[in-house]
Amino acid sequence: MRAIWTDLAVEARGGVGSQTQTLSNGIERAVVKIEDEQSAAKLGRPMGTYVTLSCPQRLSIDLETRRALSAELARALRELLPQGARCVLVAGLGNRGVTPDALGPRTIERVLVTRHMDGCLPQDARRRMASVCTATPGVLGVTGVETAEALRGLTAHVQPDAVIAVDALAARSSARICSTIQVADTGIAPGSGVGNHRKALTQKTLGVPVLAVGVPMVVYASTIARDALAAMEGDDASEEDEARLTACVERVVSERLGEMIVTPREVDALVERMAGIVAEGINLALHPGLNASEIAQMMAQ
Amino acid sequence: MRAIWTDLAVEARGGVGSQTQTLSNGIERAVVKIEDEQSAAKLGRPMGTYVTLSCPQRLSIDLETRRALSAELARALRELLPQGARCVLVAGLGNRGVTPDALGPRTIERVLVTRHMDGCLPQDARRRMASVCTATPGVLGVTGVETAEALRGLTAHVQPDAVIAVDALAARSSARICSTIQVADTGIAPGSGVGNHRKALTQKTLGVPVLAVGVPMVVYASTIARDALAAMEGDDASEEDEARLTACVERVVSERLGEMIVTPREVDALVERMAGIVAEGINLALHPGLNASEIAQMMAQ
Amino acid sequence: MRAIWTDLAVEARGGVGSQTQTLSNGIERAVVKIEDEQSAAKLGRPMGTYVTLSCPQRLSIDLETRRALSAELARALRELLPQGARCVLVAGLGNRGVTPDALGPRTIERVLVTRHMDGCLPQDARRRMASVCTATPGVLGVTGVETAEALRGLTAHVQPDAVIAVDALAARSSARICSTIQVADTGIAPGSGVGNHRKALTQKTLGVPVLAVGVPMVVYASTIARDALAAMEGDDASEEDEARLTACVERVVSERLGEMIVTPREVDALVERMAGIVAEGINLALHPGLNASEIAQMMAQ
Amino acid sequence: MRAIWTDLAVEARGGVGSQTQTLSNGIERAVVKIEDEQSAAKLGRPMGTYVTLSCPQRLSIDLETRRALSAELARALRELLPQGARCVLVAGLGNRGVTPDALGPRTIERVLVTRHMDGCLPQDARRRMASVCTATPGVLGVTGVETAEALRGLTAHVQPDAVIAVDALAARSSARICSTIQVADTGIAPGSGVGNHRKALTQKTLGVPVLAVGVPMVVYASTIARDALAAMEGDDASEEDEARLTACVERVVSERLGEMIVTPREVDALVERMAGIVAEGINLALHPGLNASEIAQMMAQ
Repeated sequence: MRAIWTDLAVEARGGVGSQTQTLSNGIERAVVKIEDEQSAAKLGRPMGTYVTLSCPQRLSIDLETRRALSAELARALRELLPQGARCVLVAGLGNRGVTPDALGPRTIERVLVTRHMDGCLPQDARRRMASVCTATPGVLGVTGVETAEALRGLTAHVQPDAVIAVDALAARSSARICSTIQVADTGIAPGSGVGNHRKALTQKTLGVPVLAVGVPMVVYASTIARDALAAMEGDDASEEDEARLTACVERVVSERLGEMIVTPREVDALVERMAGIVAEGINLALHPGLNASEIAQMMAQ
Repeated sequence: MRAIWTDLAVEARGGVGSQTQTLSNGIERAVVKIEDEQSAAKLGRPMGTYVTLSCPQRLSIDLETRRALSAELARALRELLPQGARCVLVAGLGNRGVTPDALGPRTIERVLVTRHMDGCLPQDARRRMASVCTATPGVLGVTGVETAEALRGLTAHVQPDAVIAVDALAARSSARICSTIQVADTGIAPGSGVGNHRKALTQKTLGVPVLAVGVPMVVYASTIARDALAAMEGDDASEEDEARLTACVERVVSERLGEMIVTPREVDALVERMAGIVAEGINLALHPGLNASEIAQMMAQ
Repeated sequence: MRAIWTDLAVEARGGVGSQTQTLSNGIERAVVKIEDEQSAAKLGRPMGTYVTLSCPQRLSIDLETRRALSAELARALRELLPQGARCVLVAGLGNRGVTPDALGPRTIERVLVTRHMDGCLPQDARRRMASVCTATPGVLGVTGVETAEALRGLTAHVQPDAVIAVDALAARSSARICSTIQVADTGIAPGSGVGNHRKALTQKTLGVPVLAVGVPMVVYASTIARDALAAMEGDDASEEDEARLTACVERVVSERLGEMIVTPREVDALVERMAGIVAEGINLALHPGLNASEIAQMMAQ
Repeated sequence: MRAIWTDLAVEARGGVGSQTQTLSNGIERAVVKIEDEQSAAKLGRPMGTYVTLSCPQRLSIDLETRRALSAELARALRELLPQGARCVLVAGLGNRGVTPDALGPRTIERVLVTRHMDGCLPQDARRRMASVCTATPGVLGVTGVETAEALRGLTAHVQPDAVIAVDALAARSSARICSTIQVADTGIAPGSGVGNHRKALTQKTLGVPVLAVGVPMVVYASTIARDALAAMEGDDASEEDEARLTACVERVVSERLGEMIVTPREVDALVERMAGIVAEGINLALHPGLNASEIAQMMAQ
């Protein structure tokens, strides 16, 4: 199944149609709504709304495009956040020690945290800003605690109005790496993310709405081989060919060290860039009374 | 009050007597038991048992002494852990970004985590080892979540038999820095630690026994000045002198940037060393059926 | 001698007069010129020009003040850089692993590096920008190589028109911590910096002009005690009193672990802030044809 | 050419024969000697001796196997180091910020540095130990300075008897990842390593013998696709097929973000493990008068 795995709704095979809009700066916005159980089963992901923002895939994108992406992300988040959400927990999922899986923790470093200031802020400031706190729960293999477990306890205690979970994703096509941001109101599904989270992080398991923000940072190695054959054989690729190739791929992609991922070598600079864009989008969404300049002001202090 | 603050029971003024034993390798072991409320109030810390291990204060200590310290720490922990404790959460408190306050997180990196292997271990292995998980909750000023809050939720969900909290401490005398390990069954009291934890981490607040393991990494700046005067004036120092000095100290130690701490410049190497010693002590205590070599074996993999 | 040590020319006892200007945003600029050997010997530092920028000492300073500081730093650097300097090596001195000594390495992370793009930039861009490269040589105790040795070799090969060395400093007064930036054309003198660099980094030893940019991040512990006495005794403090106190201080400040430093507990946030201000000043100085917005643009990519 | 690139001499197509020995603990040792220019051209790498140590590829290897690998690495290094080499510079190449390329810097953290102690060691200790220093020069894209440039200057100044360069490699087969260590007396060739070093690091360019120690941490993405087809087509794969596949692979593996690498997801734990093994091998080789226990002793301090 890995060969066709994707965390992106827009890539799901036989997908429900999506509405696509072209915005400024070469950004595209596509919305996929999965509204019944059959579509959910067919697409292999939960019911809900998935907003996909895309921009041209380049090692270097200009500040204007970065800002436009952040603004669009902020807009998508505001539409999906529950009405009147004032207290929000932003969780950075993933393993900080593996560069392509570090998007969550790196994003959290740039989120404007305000919950500890609650008692100090003047009334008018509190109206313009949310009460934001963060968590970076780490991964099961390092802490011995499932991400979902770590967050369940925290959420029960802090009682936020919503959780925003930021995670590095796996895409089907390497063209999607660092050129796509997905925002969904479905939370985090089991098996998703570069780290293959084992348990769900949803309203059902956490007790509050969970928005998921993800950026594809990798493709699974087996996908590359499969796609090469598809390109070779074109429409002639039969199911039998795919089966043969899957068998060959398994011979060729050694998985004795676990899952193999494909990622750009310059991934450190790319994670930094995407973390910056995502964090700015989250900050703009959560503090609607502050503009980008005022947020930079508060972050600077 | 800061001028006489210490996280070490052995340094508390007018203290209850302590029993001191001299062990091998120049290590000393002192036990302070605070058994009633009056003594607790007088000493400014909770009732309970405090074991203090001391070794000569040197930039460089040999492997034998390090191992002896770890073994003694393991012994102290085993005596204080609840009988039959099998599932233990080890929490590394403190701010990883401030070197002298990074002891907790650095120690956690070296703790043998086993909880995620529970389903895979053969029966006999499970008898010899505990189910250990870890957490590094960060600090209020960074995450917007109190350490106690973060751990309360996690503990409620994971339901360990005990929590071991590792923290960097403030001592009264700079001679105590990196030459002392304190183990207590009192948990973490408000105001303690380099980070001045605001809320208690105790059996009362977490619902399970909390052992605290601490190493002094700093002294408060105001203490240095006070002690210099005391040395100058000797026994002549009157309460009036102390008041004058406190006033002068406040003029001299600029606290516009917050609390000022005194720590050795080589603090990075010292944190590494103490983190290694403390982690080994915890590993030996939690997995009584494994010796140091077998633990190294499992850590290596 | 430690008790009166300072890396700041403005604090040097019996100093040559300095001209002070009050600028906007509460920033002050003072210039000390040491023009002969006697003054140099008296002040305990090399001949040359020392520009000191000061701002109010606060845990939190607003963006406008930060930008003004960076602009003033840029101005001071441009005045001291050799005419027509186009290729510049920016070196971040200090030990990344000790938070108050990490200013150099953290600043370097934010410097706009362009030397590797030399062949790709269009002619007009090259006129507006310098060719900038960076180095973080680490410290003797970690690498076995003196900072000066590491940079001598690099400078001989890269042959920059100038070197800018960024370093964390020790001040005499804790009021100077993070409220002062010193820019000097004297390079780095032996014994200076939090790390006490052992060999000089100057035009004489590197073969090219060396500008030093420093921010006090610590005070030596012995200074605190001395100053408390001075405050107590006021003008009555005799040389005999000072000698007695120095002796008491040595009893009180344990130096078995090496030099003891005094620094704010929130030093991680302060290093981040100062690194950002210093890097922006350096970027503005080196790329005079780019404004802050264009620099942010290039950094973002 | 990328499709058939490998940094491992044993994988080079149409290679000169290699002598293979099976040692204990499942370790194999193979020696490839390239002794003339034609073979060098054919194999696409410099003349010299290449020792390859292999062990079974597993996520988890026991301590005994790790120690045996380190011992074999030490033996190979001692055979290739110049006679009487006493002063050695160990350089950790690669980008610390990209986990699979961080092997060099992570290894250097575990190397026993002694050069700064030269003046302090007693005569007999100096006979048993080398004078070792380290460097982690970073990468061109971050510093603006080529690795070779950074090291050339340092080597000219420090004047070691030899340089040992540690680097993460790219293999042809993913089965080689973390199961192979290559030691060569040829230095670092242009185009080699995960980072594709642009300039050579050899006796010719540095003026002293350069030994290269490498561990494959990645395979290039295009290789995976090629190999899958080769597996599909078997011996029937013609040159025409290879050309078609290369074209398809280029369609499938998006290189708009630069080179794409394939690496295990658990790469952080694997880098830690290999860094430990390689560092121990280097320490044993450079300090022949110390055993593993004494080295651990000195490292601990």
